[in-house]
Amino acid sequence: MPDTSVVAAGPVPIEESATLIAAEKVSGTPVFDLEGNSLGHVETVMLDKRAGRVAYAVLAFGGFLGFGEKLYPLPWSVLTYDVALGGYRVGLDKAKLESGPSFTAAEAPDWGDRAWGERLHTHYGQRPYWEGLLI
Amino acid sequence: MPDTSVVAAGPVPIEESATLIAAEKVSGTPVFDLEGNSLGHVETVMLDKRAGRVAYAVLAFGGFLGFGEKLYPLPWSVLTYDVALGGYRVGLDKAKLESGPSFTAAEAPDWGDRAWGERLHTHYGQRPYWEGLLI
Repeated sequence: MPDTSVVAAGPVPIEESATLIAAEKVSGTPVFDLEGNSLGHVETVMLDKRAGRVAYAVLAFGGFLGFGEKLYPLPWSVLTYDVALGGYRVGLDKAKLESGPSFTAAEAPDWGDRAWGERLHTHYGQRPYWEGLLI
Repeated sequence: MPDTSVVAAGPVPIEESATLIAAEKVSGTPVFDLEGNSLGHVETVMLDKRAGRVAYAVLAFGGFLGFGEKLYPLPWSVLTYDVALGGYRVGLDKAKLESGPSFTAAEAPDWGDRAWGERLHTHYGQRPYWEGLLI
């Protein structure tokens, strides 16, 4: 991901390199499709603690001020930072997103369900992030 | 890491499994040494964007209300969540921490410096997180 931005984060400024970013800086970042249409923003990032992997970027889309918002977990690997856009660009459109796994505040998914995770990755044409890991 | 807690996070509640956690939930979590002495708290988590890895947990230690606080990047692999303590437990004491790489708000490290990262991992007896990755 070609991200050369160097920015300050949080209460204690933490500069970032081209390869590393503070997790808090990812949350709130807008997400666009390949045509530059807004798809929402990253609500949070889910980390796989034992594997030490970034598992999903949870995209918030639709609704207003948090109400009616739906949350779409995306494989981390589909997000590419676009410096010019100031956000992530993903190779999928609203239709693809809306047919993917989603949840709301009232019903969070079972993040540990590997079959669910595999379907999710397959939907977005990605290999599961945990493949090849000894976990 | 034996973390069986299921908690809600952020403005939109996101339940966590035993293996996955929202990045925001890690920040602010207290860190203890093996004797249960406080070593500070996790200020932020640094993610390796391209590799999709959790690179470092940045431990804040010392100071008061953010003033005079020093920041110690720790390899993610040294942190183990302790449900009873409600925080992370690490197998190192204050002396080990204070002799490790640190920075302040005024002078952030060059996160992309591999030699620096390797010294950091070596200090804590860990293999660099990027080893074996095609990046």
